Amino acid sequence: MDWLDLFDINLSLADERTPLYRRIVDAISGAIESGKLKAGDKLPTNRELASKLKIDRSTASRAYDELSSRGLIKSHVGRGTFVESAAIKVTAPNPVSYAAMPVRSGAIDWQNRYSSYASELYSLMEKQPRLTQGGDVINFAAGIPARHSYPQEEFVDIMQELIKSSGESSLFEFSPASGEPALRAAVIKHLEKRQVIVRDSELMILSGSQQGIDLMSNLFLNTHDLVVTENPTYFWAISNFKARQADIVGCSLDDEGIRLDELESALMSGRVKFIYLMPSGQNPTGITMSFERRKAVLALARRFATPIFEDDFSGDLFYDGEPLPPLRAISADASEHVIYQGTFSKALAPGIRLGWLVAPPPVIERLNFAKRGADLSTNSMAQAMLTEFLRRGSYDRHLARINATYTLRRDAMLSALAQYFAGTGVTFTRPKGGLFLWLKLPDYMSARNLLTFAQRAGVSFSPGDLCYVSEPDASTIRLSFIQNDQDTIKEGVKRLYNAYKLYLAELEDKAPKQTYGATAEHVLI
Amino acid sequence: MDWLDLFDINLSLADERTPLYRRIVDAISGAIESGKLKAGDKLPTNRELASKLKIDRSTASRAYDELSSRGLIKSHVGRGTFVESAAIKVTAPNPVSYAAMPVRSGAIDWQNRYSSYASELYSLMEKQPRLTQGGDVINFAAGIPARHSYPQEEFVDIMQELIKSSGESSLFEFSPASGEPALRAAVIKHLEKRQVIVRDSELMILSGSQQGIDLMSNLFLNTHDLVVTENPTYFWAISNFKARQADIVGCSLDDEGIRLDELESALMSGRVKFIYLMPSGQNPTGITMSFERRKAVLALARRFATPIFEDDFSGDLFYDGEPLPPLRAISADASEHVIYQGTFSKALAPGIRLGWLVAPPPVIERLNFAKRGADLSTNSMAQAMLTEFLRRGSYDRHLARINATYTLRRDAMLSALAQYFAGTGVTFTRPKGGLFLWLKLPDYMSARNLLTFAQRAGVSFSPGDLCYVSEPDASTIRLSFIQNDQDTIKEGVKRLYNAYKLYLAELEDKAPKQTYGATAEHVLI
Repeated sequence: MDWLDLFDINLSLADERTPLYRRIVDAISGAIESGKLKAGDKLPTNRELASKLKIDRSTASRAYDELSSRGLIKSHVGRGTFVESAAIKVTAPNPVSYAAMPVRSGAIDWQNRYSSYASELYSLMEKQPRLTQGGDVINFAAGIPARHSYPQEEFVDIMQELIKSSGESSLFEFSPASGEPALRAAVIKHLEKRQVIVRDSELMILSGSQQGIDLMSNLFLNTHDLVVTENPTYFWAISNFKARQADIVGCSLDDEGIRLDELESALMSGRVKFIYLMPSGQNPTGITMSFERRKAVLALARRFATPIFEDDFSGDLFYDGEPLPPLRAISADASEHVIYQGTFSKALAPGIRLGWLVAPPPVIERLNFAKRGADLSTNSMAQAMLTEFLRRGSYDRHLARINATYTLRRDAMLSALAQYFAGTGVTFTRPKGGLFLWLKLPDYMSARNLLTFAQRAGVSFSPGDLCYVSEPDASTIRLSFIQNDQDTIKEGVKRLYNAYKLYLAELEDKAPKQTYGATAEHVLI
Repeated sequence: MDWLDLFDINLSLADERTPLYRRIVDAISGAIESGKLKAGDKLPTNRELASKLKIDRSTASRAYDELSSRGLIKSHVGRGTFVESAAIKVTAPNPVSYAAMPVRSGAIDWQNRYSSYASELYSLMEKQPRLTQGGDVINFAAGIPARHSYPQEEFVDIMQELIKSSGESSLFEFSPASGEPALRAAVIKHLEKRQVIVRDSELMILSGSQQGIDLMSNLFLNTHDLVVTENPTYFWAISNFKARQADIVGCSLDDEGIRLDELESALMSGRVKFIYLMPSGQNPTGITMSFERRKAVLALARRFATPIFEDDFSGDLFYDGEPLPPLRAISADASEHVIYQGTFSKALAPGIRLGWLVAPPPVIERLNFAKRGADLSTNSMAQAMLTEFLRRGSYDRHLARINATYTLRRDAMLSALAQYFAGTGVTFTRPKGGLFLWLKLPDYMSARNLLTFAQRAGVSFSPGDLCYVSEPDASTIRLSFIQNDQDTIKEGVKRLYNAYKLYLAELEDKAPKQTYGATAEHVLI
C-alpha cells in the first residue's frame, strides 16, 4: 500500500501550531482537490494510517471524521473508506475555489434532485385512491365533521366582540412560537377536565396536531430509528415516520387496544425512539383502549424507559358515559414518560388549524425551536377566537351537543350495518368514541375493488390498506360516522350493501370460470 | 480471523431455494439475535467474507447492504464494519418475536434520544443573544412591522363583511393543502403586477414563507447535499439547511448582490441542490441585486442547470421608484429554473401567517404532499380575509402608504447614522427596499459586546454573526428601520452612538494595559 506517496504528509516538518489531525485533513483534501486522489479511490483504515504515520489512532480517526463530515470521504459497509467526491471547501473563505468540472447546461432534471424524504412520501401518496367528490355520493371517507356542525354563529359573535376590543388586542401581531399565553392558559384549564394537569412550561400550541407529528419526527427520528405504533394506524403518521427513513414496528390491536405481548416484544430491542398511540377512538379502527390496558401500557413504557407519544386527536368525542383518562393522566409520573397532543380540528372545526402538545419542559423547548424552523408561529386571529370560545365555556356546551348527535349517528351506522350485512361474514368494530369504525370484509375481497362498485352506487369510504405499517389487510375499510345525518347514514350503508352484492356477484361470476378452459385463463390475465 | 466459527454458514447444505445472499443475512442476523455476535463486534470486509465463503463479492456486498439497511451493522469511516445492535425484525409478521434483552427501567434519557436535526438546531439556537424586551428600549432588532402599521380597521371591516355572508363561505372549513382557490387567484393577479406570470398549477399557499424554506429543505436536502446562499443570509434558512445536515457554500455580496465569481465557483461542483437567494432587500444586508446581476445570476443557473430558490420576502417594500422584476420574471424560461416565494408577513401583518410559493407543476405537486405532512393545510379564515383584502385593491393602497412611510424612516436612519458615526470607521449599506440595513464596526470591535452597552443605553439590534454560513464577521450588525417612527429612530441611533463611545472607551482603557506588567495579563485572562 503505497498510497501515501500520492501526497505529502510531511508531519515532522509541518507547522507545529496546526493540530496534527488538521494537517492530515489538509493533506488529504489537498490531494483530492489537486486530483491526485480521485472519487472512488480507497483509503487505508485509520489503523493503517496511524501505523504508517506513527501517530495515535484517535488522531487518524478524528481526521477521517472531519473529512467524512465534509463529504469528501465515505465508508461503505464491508468495503472500506473511499474518496467520495471532488474537494469542496464548504467552509472556505471567499472567494471559494473549486476544481473545474464539466458543465451540465440546460433543463433541470427535477426527478433526480429530490431528497429521500420526497421520494418516500411520493411513493406513499401515489398509492392513495382517488375518491369521487360531491354530487350524490355519500361520503364515509373524510375524517372531518360536517360543515353545519361548526359553531359558526358563535364564532361570528366572538369575532365581532374581538374586533370591537381589538385596539389593544393582538389579532394580527406575531404570536410567540409556543402560542398566545392566553390560549395556553385556556387549554391548560380545558385539559384539567380530562384529569391532565399541565404546567405552562410543558405546553405548546400547534398549527393543528399534524404539525405535532411532524415536529416529533424532526426532533427524534434519524434514519433507521425505530418507532412502535398500533397496526393499523394513522396514514399521515406512517408517512411522516417513513419519510424520515425510520423503521416502524406495528403492533396489532384487540378490543382493549394495542396488544401487550407485541408491544413488549417490540420494546425489548431497547432502541425504540417512541411509541405512537391513539388510545381513544383510534384512527382507523375506532377502538378505545381500556383502563386496565392503559395502566399496563404505561407500566411497559416505564419499564423500558421509552417515551409514549399519545395522540388524543378525538379525545373530546365520546359516546358511552365519561371518557377514560388519557395515558398522560394515568399516574403522577406519566408526565415524564408521555408526550401528549390533541387538536380542535375534529371536535370543533378543521379550518382553524389549532392543536396543542404537552411534554417535559426540555422537550418543549426543543419542539419550539423546531416549530420556529417549520412556520415560526401560529395564526394569531384563530388563537384569539379559540381563547374566547374556551373562556366562555362554549366549547363544553358544543361538545355536549355534538357528542349527543354523534352518538345517534354511530348507533345509526351500527344498526344499519348489522341489518344489511347480517350473515355475510362482514365484521365491524363498535366505537366508544372518535369518528371512525372499522369494517372487515371476507378475506377474499378487496376493499379497493369494492370502492369502484361503491362509488358507482353513490357512496365512498377509505380503503384500509394504507393504514397498515406493513403487510396490509386489503379487505378492510374505514367508515366515518360523524359527517352525515342518520337518514343519510342509513341510505349510505344501503348503497354500500348494494355495491357489496354486485362485487360479490362479479367474484362468483369469475370464480367458477377459473376452473374451466381458455376463457377463464383470459379473465385471470 | 476465525469469526466465522461464531456461527454456522453451511452454504453448501442450505436450502437451495433461498438466495445465497439471503442465507448470509439470516446467518449473521441469527448470530446477532442469539448473542453470538454482539454490538461492537467487527465483521470482515466483504472481500474477506467472499474469499472465506468462496462466493461472489457482489453477493457478500448485497448481504451487507441488507444487514446495514436493517440497522444491524454499520460501517465506520476508517475503521471497518461492526455489529450495530441487537437484531430486530422490523417487518416481521405479528406477533413480533425478539431476543430478550436487558431491561433499562426508569427515567427517560431525553438527551440521548434527539435526532441529528434536533441537535444541530439546538446548537444554533443556543448561540442566539438574549435581547432586552419592552421598557424604554428602542428595538432595531425585530424584522416585523410596527403594530400600528397594520391595516387593522380594514381587516375588521372585511371580517364583518365575511361574517355577514358566511352562510355559504368556508371560513372554518378545511382548506385544500394548496390553499383556497380564491386566494390562489388573487395572489396570481397580484404577482402579475410584479411581472410574474403564474398558472394556477404552479402556485401554492404557505402558512408563511418560513414554511416554504422548511418544505424546500424537506423536498430536496439529503445529508451532505450542497446549498449555495448569499453570505451573510437569513438565520432561519441557515438553520433549516444545516439541521437537515446539508452543507452550505456562502458567496459574499457586493453592492449589486451576490458575487458572480464565487457563485460560478460554487456551481462548478455540479452537485448543488439549489441556490437560495433574496434578490430584493436581502436579509440581513438590505442589498438589492441590480438588474444586470439578476440576468447574469439567471444565466449561471441555466448554464449549470441548477434551480434558484428565490425568497422575495420583502419584494413589496421598495423605496426608490419601481421595483426590479424578480428573477422569476427576468426571462420566459425562468419558470423552469426559479422556485419563487413571498410572504404577506412583512408588508402586511405577521400574525396572519400567509405566504405563497411558485414552482413548476411537478415540484408543486410534491411540495403539496410535504405540506400535508407538515400541517395538512393553512388556516381558512385568514385566507378568506386576505382574499378579500387583495380583491378590493386594499393591498396596493396599503403598500403605497407604508412604502412612503418606510422611505422616510430609512432616510432618517441613514442620516442619523451618517451624522453620529462620521469619522468613526463605521460603515453601512443604503437599502433600496426591505426592512434592514447592515452596519459594519471596525474589525477589532464585537457586535455582541456593543449590544451589552447598547441595551444599557436603551437600544437593541441583531448582532450579525449568526447570519454567516461560516467564519462570521463578529463586527457586523443588522438594524431594522421600519419598526420605529423617525424621531424614535434618531433617538435610537443617538443611544447606539453613546453605547459605541462607552465600548470604545473600555477597549482603549484595556488596550494600553495589555503591554504593561501583571495587571494587564490578569485582565487578559
